[in-house]
Amino acid sequence: MADPATSPPLTRDSVQAARELIAPYVHHTPTLTNRTLTQLASTPRTREELQKAGGGWERVENPANPKLRLWFKCENLQRVGAFKARGAFHALGRLLGEEGFERGRGVVTHSSGNHAQALALAARTHDVPAYIVMPEISTPSKVAATKGYGATVIFSGSTSVEREAAAAKVIAETGARLVPPYDHPDIVLGQGTLGLEMQEDAARMMAAAEQEQQGQSQGQDQEGGRCSFAAPVTTMKTDDGAAAAGSSKGGKKGKVGLDAILAPCGGGGMLSGVALSCEGTGIRVFGCEPSYQGANDAKRGYESGQRVERVSSLTVADGLRTPLGQVPWRIIYERRLVSGFYSVSEREICDALRLVLERFKMVVEPSAAVPLAVALYNEDFRGLVEREAGAEGWDVGVVFSGGMLVWRRWGSCLRMRRRASRGRASRPDISGVDDRLGILL
Amino acid sequence: MADPATSPPLTRDSVQAARELIAPYVHHTPTLTNRTLTQLASTPRTREELQKAGGGWERVENPANPKLRLWFKCENLQRVGAFKARGAFHALGRLLGEEGFERGRGVVTHSSGNHAQALALAARTHDVPAYIVMPEISTPSKVAATKGYGATVIFSGSTSVEREAAAAKVIAETGARLVPPYDHPDIVLGQGTLGLEMQEDAARMMAAAEQEQQGQSQGQDQEGGRCSFAAPVTTMKTDDGAAAAGSSKGGKKGKVGLDAILAPCGGGGMLSGVALSCEGTGIRVFGCEPSYQGANDAKRGYESGQRVERVSSLTVADGLRTPLGQVPWRIIYERRLVSGFYSVSEREICDALRLVLERFKMVVEPSAAVPLAVALYNEDFRGLVEREAGAEGWDVGVVFSGGMLVWRRWGSCLRMRRRASRGRASRPDISGVDDRLGILL
Repeated sequence: MADPATSPPLTRDSVQAARELIAPYVHHTPTLTNRTLTQLASTPRTREELQKAGGGWERVENPANPKLRLWFKCENLQRVGAFKARGAFHALGRLLGEEGFERGRGVVTHSSGNHAQALALAARTHDVPAYIVMPEISTPSKVAATKGYGATVIFSGSTSVEREAAAAKVIAETGARLVPPYDHPDIVLGQGTLGLEMQEDAARMMAAAEQEQQGQSQGQDQEGGRCSFAAPVTTMKTDDGAAAAGSSKGGKKGKVGLDAILAPCGGGGMLSGVALSCEGTGIRVFGCEPSYQGANDAKRGYESGQRVERVSSLTVADGLRTPLGQVPWRIIYERRLVSGFYSVSEREICDALRLVLERFKMVVEPSAAVPLAVALYNEDFRGLVEREAGAEGWDVGVVFSGGMLVWRRWGSCLRMRRRASRGRASRPDISGVDDRLGILL
Repeated sequence: MADPATSPPLTRDSVQAARELIAPYVHHTPTLTNRTLTQLASTPRTREELQKAGGGWERVENPANPKLRLWFKCENLQRVGAFKARGAFHALGRLLGEEGFERGRGVVTHSSGNHAQALALAARTHDVPAYIVMPEISTPSKVAATKGYGATVIFSGSTSVEREAAAAKVIAETGARLVPPYDHPDIVLGQGTLGLEMQEDAARMMAAAEQEQQGQSQGQDQEGGRCSFAAPVTTMKTDDGAAAAGSSKGGKKGKVGLDAILAPCGGGGMLSGVALSCEGTGIRVFGCEPSYQGANDAKRGYESGQRVERVSSLTVADGLRTPLGQVPWRIIYERRLVSGFYSVSEREICDALRLVLERFKMVVEPSAAVPLAVALYNEDFRGLVEREAGAEGWDVGVVFSGGMLVWRRWGSCLRMRRRASRGRASRPDISGVDDRLGILL
């Protein structure tokens, strides 16, 4: 990796500069709305639902009644199927601009997930060798995909010590440079670019909807999963979507644009980048995590003031099993650019995932469904919106972080939902369910 | 239904008029591209693939080498999840404009599929009672969805005679008007509106891509599932997208716009409507069907000159089990507005479906994957494009007709693919596979 000391300052302007650097290589993904999900989020949960949900919600006397308008940033449609392409192209682009970087020596990372494929793609694009250290137990399809992008795959044991040792060996032998998945300023700045796009697109769509409303008589009913679409207008140069003229469709006074963004949090690279992209705009940023087996490490760290350094969770949201990195921590906690964290249960994640498939017709991975689960099911967040926004409500950006299809994991989500709906299990053992669903592969 | 004798003439102008009538009620869905699928379609199949595929392709000596650029019309993002919303809103809108129509008496149809929900939604929107006759064996989720739109569901036996008798009884008792799923001019004209949108959007995207190419230096590589997005610009009034200025990105001389459209064909309402929308533009329209158990009735009828009136197939593409209707037949065959038909095997449909999920991140139903299967796997079609278009290639519109999720059917598709990849079965028995996958529901 580039020496962090040479990285640009961690500011909104640097996110803007990152955006220009990576623009030729990544998609400006669309921001979409969905009437059904927005209506569902704006409907109070019933006492029965809360009682079934468990997790403390069964004691809620008055279910929250927030008004939420949801804006979905579709990074599942990003290259390699996840936002990780942004950080990888930015980190490599910065390396290429460094005087001492010898292209032929290549880059290395240890990852079995989306970052591996993203770095492999970025490296091939710039004709740089890529070495990817993956645990021997990695899914064959992930190994094949990474090799498919032209990378050299090196297998290691599955502990972090073993993986780091294997990466160190590659570095010693080849002189390759390490590009970590999240704990580096260049990665953070790259991921943050999605925040700029969604701010602008949502503001533009709100302004267009209002214009249309003014010009048209009423003709539309209120139901049925209406979607609208923001085209990636790559020529648009609005610097601050949140400050654009006009007022929101939803009736907010004198302001157009997002009020808040919900983003998933694993290592925190994307969350902290999005937070930088919102600095000074008034848009509040919240992190979203699974609560299962302590995967809500960022929430616990944020609330105790002490970063949690180890996580061991088998949550279905497998992209979020990682502890928060140091660089993200400084942005999220020390600079307080993230306003708080919310966590959701495995069942809530799976319910949200199924809604996305059935009503949005989008393929997302379980980790990507976590922020929607917060908007739909977390009474703490929903109560906050009700208190703060009242009848005007909030326009909330929801990050669909990726669409990596792992059939076994997906199957386990659907299966879990089925068991739950029969009332047989409130929190089934996931690994077991996974195994029984081997049939689907 | 409105008396067919009072319907507008079956012309492109009437499709345009239908579009204006339904515009307030349906989505202008996006037209998307996908780099991976376009590349795959433009790569010759290997001899090994053709030998595995069977169905006659194993005897192909020289696999076709067409150049195809694919444009996907995403009607899976339409209201109720399918193009059927267009026809239903148009048929009901025409009824409402009829002098003798008594709104309170309602409308009736017999359908267990997307048309049932589409008519229920249209009826509720216009405050008209809707009666939907469904077979007793219908999936509970479809019954619930139809009731969810406020319709009265009447159960019947599952033969067409039993269903028609039940509908006749409703008509006798209530005076409701029948709105058939496809065999009526108003339905045909409504479905055809998607053809106008995709012609315009594809032409606009081609022109924009060319502009961008002229203004930019090369920076993009060629791989990785690139998508681009056409926003539904509802204010756009181009009458003929195919005639817009400029020339295609792909290097076609002096012409921008689609060369052909591939659409699924069940009853033929949508295919014939799309054909009308292309009349006089030079865009060729082809129908796509499953070959399993004779579901390619339209192809057989078109080639023999005699409409096939009965089909009994359990193809996984369950929306395409219907024989071609009389009104569509006249447009498709007698007026020759459709240039031909291609059919694909069950395995090819499932392979295409899985590619859409994995690489496009879109949820589509098996029927909607049939046209893509033709573009990817049908050597007859691919050979035609190679011969006719040569190095310039064709821009081909592909209709993703719907995204109705029936988990069992979906599961059977994925399962089939797995078995096939292990070489254990070339054409597994679908009903049996379905049953074993009951686990997923």
